[in-house]
Amino acid sequence: MRKVAVVGVGETKFSGPQEKTAVEMFAEAASEAITGSNLKPKDVQALFLGNALGDFAEGQGMMQAYAAEYIGCRYIPANRYEGACASASVAVRDAFMWVASGMYDIVLAGGVERAATMGTGLATRTFAMFSDAHYEYPAGVTFPAVFAMLAHLYADTYHIPLQKLREQMARVTMQSYKHGSINPKAQFFGKNGDIAMEKILNSFVVATPLTLHDCCPFSDGAAAVIIASEDAARKLTDKPVYITGIGQASNGPLVNQNDYLPRIRARELSSEQAYKMAGIKPAEVDVCELHDCFSIASLIAAESLGFFDFGTAGEAWEKGQADIGGKIAINPSGGLKSKGHPIGATGAGQVYEVVNQLRGKAEPGRQVPEAGIGMTDTLGGDGGTLVNMIFEKGW
Amino acid sequence: MRKVAVVGVGETKFSGPQEKTAVEMFAEAASEAITGSNLKPKDVQALFLGNALGDFAEGQGMMQAYAAEYIGCRYIPANRYEGACASASVAVRDAFMWVASGMYDIVLAGGVERAATMGTGLATRTFAMFSDAHYEYPAGVTFPAVFAMLAHLYADTYHIPLQKLREQMARVTMQSYKHGSINPKAQFFGKNGDIAMEKILNSFVVATPLTLHDCCPFSDGAAAVIIASEDAARKLTDKPVYITGIGQASNGPLVNQNDYLPRIRARELSSEQAYKMAGIKPAEVDVCELHDCFSIASLIAAESLGFFDFGTAGEAWEKGQADIGGKIAINPSGGLKSKGHPIGATGAGQVYEVVNQLRGKAEPGRQVPEAGIGMTDTLGGDGGTLVNMIFEKGW
Repeated sequence: MRKVAVVGVGETKFSGPQEKTAVEMFAEAASEAITGSNLKPKDVQALFLGNALGDFAEGQGMMQAYAAEYIGCRYIPANRYEGACASASVAVRDAFMWVASGMYDIVLAGGVERAATMGTGLATRTFAMFSDAHYEYPAGVTFPAVFAMLAHLYADTYHIPLQKLREQMARVTMQSYKHGSINPKAQFFGKNGDIAMEKILNSFVVATPLTLHDCCPFSDGAAAVIIASEDAARKLTDKPVYITGIGQASNGPLVNQNDYLPRIRARELSSEQAYKMAGIKPAEVDVCELHDCFSIASLIAAESLGFFDFGTAGEAWEKGQADIGGKIAINPSGGLKSKGHPIGATGAGQVYEVVNQLRGKAEPGRQVPEAGIGMTDTLGGDGGTLVNMIFEKGW
Repeated sequence: MRKVAVVGVGETKFSGPQEKTAVEMFAEAASEAITGSNLKPKDVQALFLGNALGDFAEGQGMMQAYAAEYIGCRYIPANRYEGACASASVAVRDAFMWVASGMYDIVLAGGVERAATMGTGLATRTFAMFSDAHYEYPAGVTFPAVFAMLAHLYADTYHIPLQKLREQMARVTMQSYKHGSINPKAQFFGKNGDIAMEKILNSFVVATPLTLHDCCPFSDGAAAVIIASEDAARKLTDKPVYITGIGQASNGPLVNQNDYLPRIRARELSSEQAYKMAGIKPAEVDVCELHDCFSIASLIAAESLGFFDFGTAGEAWEKGQADIGGKIAINPSGGLKSKGHPIGATGAGQVYEVVNQLRGKAEPGRQVPEAGIGMTDTLGGDGGTLVNMIFEKGW
């Protein structure tokens, strides 16, 4: 297989409800990625698009075909992927393979969602469809409930007093808000940058022990990346970012994972594949955008990815070891919790951030110094789909 | 890239509403494909699943992850594709690439839908989401309306009196019913095999000039195929069917296709890719399962695929040139119109039929003698996604 690079990235601001259609939003991100890659739409050979809920948000299935034409890439093969919150990561990983195989040289991949436009009620109901519809969903197991249960299991498994865990989770939130507040693309840009721990702990309870500030927002947004062969990349940019490792795994219903909870088994398998393919160890990763849909999700992810020992991630956040300048810089974008979570776009948004970090293009205050290796981690459903990708500077 | 084969296929009976869940239905088809390939579930390295409307039919997104575990393929990467009626064909084409690239040796691909379970009202409303939601859908342009307009355009373009075209379309239907009536997997098995043309012409009008019998039914069903590398295939079966050509293309809103209508431009581009890759001409194809969601759709498809000159397909059907023993055997399964149309499964069902035809396993009366080269043609939406694949006997 051939070496594969990201040559350009694009992203809308992640935000609350937008007037634009999903196709228009994706076109905005795609145009930025295409132009930034020194390409024209006619150079793009295929479109791989993540979108989870367009049918519900605006009554539009098959938006990939309309997006291709709207962007100016008429007639190209256009695929849509639904992998819940990991939809765009599945799309990017697939684009990697079509280029690695030699079939295509230039592919546009990404995702879009209008989750904020749907409103909290419909968004919550439809998000819950990405858990098991026969046992979990009817029992009221929406995602805040899932992660609240994981928080209790985490506290119990590692013998951490619940109040202590709540404070550790608040540290996660404070770090996310700090970075998001200075990221112009973030939904919470300019907000909550200096929030007090007391305010987080005393905000209203969503699902005990999670309060409002432990949860990510509903967001509208789109992100896009141009995936190219090594030869094409060398002609298009002097700063190619190579995808050196990919991994993906699945899980069935949460209840079947009881040997592993509060860990997510699919993440351990997926990241192992990615590390092995890249030939690196977790300690070599400089920056990671991981799936922090809830503050507890950050702790669980960081441990399964091998950055911290099991049961110690909370302490790591307290000591700044998960921040820029620490052992590993986690979510310098602000993550899902502050940058936002337009579910079908989130994975591509993570790639956008990691590529910009490796290129040294993030804003002062949230740029990771000398970042050479980056990683993304995207969780779909309650562990149903896990995708990890590793990126390395090509110059 | 490596040579890629289909080593086993499976399919549920296509039918009206089922009590089984989509996961259970797909598992039935997948188990048949896995067992028929002399494999065990643990040998499968990835699952690529087409499903268009599971979120609406049973409130289940992410069914690919649950299906993987249910079948016994725990933790493998599992992707879901939504390409409307072409969802499963997109999944199979993607499986082809992951095996051709050398990344995987054994992949399970297929699709499932419970469109009949949804009921006519919800199915019609949600199917329409696969046309353009901003201009076509609000104007009442459901799929019967689209194909009714194409029928009028066809008659007008090729100067065929409308009543003559109606009789030609009735011939298409009669052939479909004849084959489906002796296909035990068909929704209309045992039905309408000797229907009179008068009955078709006089059935109630759905969208003029299309009557009830010009339209395919809503169906529940699942189909699955095992895609393997040449090396793996040689160990698993003495009757590998090679995928020698693939093609895919997209189109935007129907109104933007006005230079080509009643032809579908994406089909001409997609089939051209497939023919070129396989190194064959249309006249070399012995059997083709094409996308006959409506009788007029058969005429349009057969012409764009190069089997008949433009404007002459109706005559070809009248003369038996599209039947077994004619120039090319089209839809010996009964096609969407008689075998049924579980939309997310349809493309994989076409592969099931073509593979069985090449292996000489179809029932007497609908087996194409000495079939060596087969083809599938799947249309998603009103031309939004087109997928063509060419298959050849490997023994």
